[in-house]
Amino acid sequence: MSDPRQIILDCDPGHDDAVAMMLALANPAIELLGITTVGGNQTLDKITRNAQSVLVMCGREDVPVHAGSARPLVRRVEIAPDIHGESGLDGVELPEPTRPPQDTHAVRFIIDTLMAAEPGTVTLVATGPLTNVALAARLEPRIVERVREVVVMGGGYHEGNWTPVAEFNIWVDPEAAHIVFDEEWPLTMVGLDLTHQALATAKVEAQVRDIDSPLGEFFIGLMDFFRKAYQEHQGFPDPPVHDACTIAYLIDPTIVQTRKVPLTVELRGEHTVGMTVADFRSPAAADCRHQVATKLDHAGFWDLVVEAIRVLSHEES
Amino acid sequence: MSDPRQIILDCDPGHDDAVAMMLALANPAIELLGITTVGGNQTLDKITRNAQSVLVMCGREDVPVHAGSARPLVRRVEIAPDIHGESGLDGVELPEPTRPPQDTHAVRFIIDTLMAAEPGTVTLVATGPLTNVALAARLEPRIVERVREVVVMGGGYHEGNWTPVAEFNIWVDPEAAHIVFDEEWPLTMVGLDLTHQALATAKVEAQVRDIDSPLGEFFIGLMDFFRKAYQEHQGFPDPPVHDACTIAYLIDPTIVQTRKVPLTVELRGEHTVGMTVADFRSPAAADCRHQVATKLDHAGFWDLVVEAIRVLSHEES
Amino acid sequence: MSDPRQIILDCDPGHDDAVAMMLALANPAIELLGITTVGGNQTLDKITRNAQSVLVMCGREDVPVHAGSARPLVRRVEIAPDIHGESGLDGVELPEPTRPPQDTHAVRFIIDTLMAAEPGTVTLVATGPLTNVALAARLEPRIVERVREVVVMGGGYHEGNWTPVAEFNIWVDPEAAHIVFDEEWPLTMVGLDLTHQALATAKVEAQVRDIDSPLGEFFIGLMDFFRKAYQEHQGFPDPPVHDACTIAYLIDPTIVQTRKVPLTVELRGEHTVGMTVADFRSPAAADCRHQVATKLDHAGFWDLVVEAIRVLSHEES
Amino acid sequence: MSDPRQIILDCDPGHDDAVAMMLALANPAIELLGITTVGGNQTLDKITRNAQSVLVMCGREDVPVHAGSARPLVRRVEIAPDIHGESGLDGVELPEPTRPPQDTHAVRFIIDTLMAAEPGTVTLVATGPLTNVALAARLEPRIVERVREVVVMGGGYHEGNWTPVAEFNIWVDPEAAHIVFDEEWPLTMVGLDLTHQALATAKVEAQVRDIDSPLGEFFIGLMDFFRKAYQEHQGFPDPPVHDACTIAYLIDPTIVQTRKVPLTVELRGEHTVGMTVADFRSPAAADCRHQVATKLDHAGFWDLVVEAIRVLSHEES
Repeated sequence: MSDPRQIILDCDPGHDDAVAMMLALANPAIELLGITTVGGNQTLDKITRNAQSVLVMCGREDVPVHAGSARPLVRRVEIAPDIHGESGLDGVELPEPTRPPQDTHAVRFIIDTLMAAEPGTVTLVATGPLTNVALAARLEPRIVERVREVVVMGGGYHEGNWTPVAEFNIWVDPEAAHIVFDEEWPLTMVGLDLTHQALATAKVEAQVRDIDSPLGEFFIGLMDFFRKAYQEHQGFPDPPVHDACTIAYLIDPTIVQTRKVPLTVELRGEHTVGMTVADFRSPAAADCRHQVATKLDHAGFWDLVVEAIRVLSHEES
Repeated sequence: MSDPRQIILDCDPGHDDAVAMMLALANPAIELLGITTVGGNQTLDKITRNAQSVLVMCGREDVPVHAGSARPLVRRVEIAPDIHGESGLDGVELPEPTRPPQDTHAVRFIIDTLMAAEPGTVTLVATGPLTNVALAARLEPRIVERVREVVVMGGGYHEGNWTPVAEFNIWVDPEAAHIVFDEEWPLTMVGLDLTHQALATAKVEAQVRDIDSPLGEFFIGLMDFFRKAYQEHQGFPDPPVHDACTIAYLIDPTIVQTRKVPLTVELRGEHTVGMTVADFRSPAAADCRHQVATKLDHAGFWDLVVEAIRVLSHEES
Repeated sequence: MSDPRQIILDCDPGHDDAVAMMLALANPAIELLGITTVGGNQTLDKITRNAQSVLVMCGREDVPVHAGSARPLVRRVEIAPDIHGESGLDGVELPEPTRPPQDTHAVRFIIDTLMAAEPGTVTLVATGPLTNVALAARLEPRIVERVREVVVMGGGYHEGNWTPVAEFNIWVDPEAAHIVFDEEWPLTMVGLDLTHQALATAKVEAQVRDIDSPLGEFFIGLMDFFRKAYQEHQGFPDPPVHDACTIAYLIDPTIVQTRKVPLTVELRGEHTVGMTVADFRSPAAADCRHQVATKLDHAGFWDLVVEAIRVLSHEES
Repeated sequence: MSDPRQIILDCDPGHDDAVAMMLALANPAIELLGITTVGGNQTLDKITRNAQSVLVMCGREDVPVHAGSARPLVRRVEIAPDIHGESGLDGVELPEPTRPPQDTHAVRFIIDTLMAAEPGTVTLVATGPLTNVALAARLEPRIVERVREVVVMGGGYHEGNWTPVAEFNIWVDPEAAHIVFDEEWPLTMVGLDLTHQALATAKVEAQVRDIDSPLGEFFIGLMDFFRKAYQEHQGFPDPPVHDACTIAYLIDPTIVQTRKVPLTVELRGEHTVGMTVADFRSPAAADCRHQVATKLDHAGFWDLVVEAIRVLSHEES
């Protein structure tokens, strides 16, 4: 087996970010170098503490947490309490972290980690607004050549949620997204077209219930709240666990099919701000740096997640 | 059988406009009250003359032709010689019209016809930029309540041609399109999602060749040029005969499946100007005035077209 | 003395439009061919009736009134009741017109008048949103060469009122303004930079009071309401009688100094929609079609207005 | 005499930046804590080296130089070789620096300096694009409360240079400018309205020639090139020494008159991107954080500059 994939997870937990964390912590194909946080689903303070609480639940407080940007580059803050509740992780009791977050700012941690590592070894996974990643690219342009890949949960080529054609993470900070999509690194967009396939069904919950562990209960509590929010505000039967798809793609690319296509982020439209515009009109050029996730192996994906919860549950005990 | 559907065809022939004309002239379910022209695929002078030449070919110079707007409302003229050639109908010999176009401006003809007819009887079919229709709605707002339906070839909910997300007719005059989409009349968008299914295949051409008539040869000449243009500039194997789909939809709605969805035309995006933004996030409201064409019965569609050419060929003789 | 200047006055009375009408009706240098109306300061119905009432007050119901566009080309209607009151001419009793407006639409009247007259003889004066003028230019492009000059009250090169940098008439229908400013006719912009100099002071009112006529009282009633509105909503000591400056400029160009400068209307800015962007960076080209009004001879201007009220008051009796 | 004003000068020398440096280095009212550089008039490498060369000329290589952002936040790089030449300081021989720039990034230096100093003591003076200042505000939001004042050379309320209504520094990175103008710190905009009054006339040059020093010759060489560029490309008789006005304002506020007015940076206009929109419609609120420079005491300003060159010339020897 090859070396595990080294990643930094830039996130704003968030119910689906929490599941992404579990997958990244448990699966041996991933080495989680650190968690960086960014204001998005809730305020920076709340989601940073949420990240720490999830680490407590997973028994992995050794993973460093670096707080980052509290607000978008140019636009005003927008959060999503309708979807993630007042805490950002409503539906469960959140355990107290036993240690504070790191002193170093998220952007500095991203830069330092990438500049210290072998070029081409570290992958940036971003599941919140792209503010931190954009700031890192502007402050230290050399990281662009050193990163292995940038994997973004955000956007969509044919689907939107916050507007008819824009997804929340991109819409919240479109200028940051534009910076990240426009840089010369390889970028995989795991957008709504893919993540709306990743529904946490009753069957999935039953599998997790069988594990019969505090972390399993935690997952179920999160999903039950998330389901209700998605039923009420988005007309979904079950909640899509967007962010975890990025980690599944890195663990096993056969679970997430992709297609090369050039992407641009719209900054100025009246009805299209934050849209990730994909040009499917002709086959992508060989050197196209963008690819979009298209089709999810639902069973394969959830097998990974359930297994991750099982592994972490046993480690706990 | 019910009365034929009374229509005004506002067009810019244009290879596919020519086929729309044949279908409207030949099929007994349609009564073509007049043709109005608008600068688009080529300049107004050329496409007006093209409309007349198609009428000559069809033996139907009795149908009045009214020239309209030479340019978009706000933006500069843009034409499509790569797709339709220097004449706008390259690939065939165009016969001389034996009579001039009408004196009355297209916009006046649209207004006068709608105001003179019984409310709810006349349908506007627009297969070019929407300049004429927009001007008519602004000059005589009462037509909005009097029209039966507006059927537009233009736009697309997931496809573009002139840009990644915009179709030519809408992109050329987005302000006119915004006016037309924003008015309180029922509007059916027959966009690229549908019309890219209407390919004129070799089998279709063989069927038309069997008719063995001057009009059949005319059709084949048009399609051969159009195929080459689409192969070269759009990467298609066969040419999509966009505009004729609007008439097929009016003749037999089972040939063109539709879905209700609210639509808005983007006027200000850097990468999205002229996009027809569709909101599929929740089921359309019962009183939604917009619907989009989604799925074409390819065989049924071409049966209508081939039959139309056959009927007109016999009438000729 | 030369022949009087033939004009069509396209307006939305409006307190200052009413004064423009008085000046155009009374001064022998002007021949008022007709009044066309456009929704702006108030709804089309109200301002059309206001135009008729002013004609009644001036004893000149022989001048034809043609109602035009009720709304802007692309954007939603916006009116200015804070400034002009519920009627559009608050502050006075409005006499009943004794005849209806003309049947012909304003746009048709503009086109027909310009096409029937000698080229270069008729001037279009527009003191409301530019919807009618824009529609006329699009429906009959030949008027562009036939008009003598277009004189617009609207915009400003360094001043705004509805926004920091946009004036109401342009802001209400910026697409129409863009069409009008972009056409190849000579255009004089009498903007806020000029019209904010045309304040109806107490001294002016005293002069009018001396005339001691119903029309004089009418003028004073209008100005008193207008003063209060401008004091309350715009921080002015006295009301600026914007629209009348266009007529004064035509009567005697020495009263309104002008300067050539290229102008463009901004359609897309977040803070600048409807701004008339003037490029003062280098001297205007010799063939520059645009000029802006810069400096008003306040005394000369008001002498013309007071004299007009005196003339019309005597004609009345 | 009060303590000198502590400043960080964020610049892109640039002929007028060089004069700003001289004034800041020589005048006892100013304590220059460091120079940070930003790509603008020329590429980052060139202008950073230019900053060092000016320090060499002034005998002040002890002042630390920190290189910063090579490009704007969101948009593509744009430089101004027409105005500042291939080197960014054309017209003179540039001496070799004897030491490299500091290791620390400009943004880090700005943050560290502000966080280490007493709140309310350090002033940020920015005479290039606002990229560094914007990044600092986003990375460490607490600097916003700690800064004493931000003084910007850029923008204009009634004048533009790069476009009819936009000044180069703002236009190059409007998103950064928006961030800086939108933050809750006191900001003084020394825009073109003011700096176009700061012309380096023949009389000024004569005064500097009388000093008869290498630095004097250096200044004259710079001004001669700058004059030619401004004559050729901007239609000015003499070159405006924009950036030095910021330092003059800090030394002696009676030399630069100001007025409070709310400002916003336009990001989306077609003709107005990068405009600094000022709202003069009513008196600014008491807590308005923005002021604009309006009127320069030309003689007083140049007395300061000439004296600075004299002081530095004597220190050299």
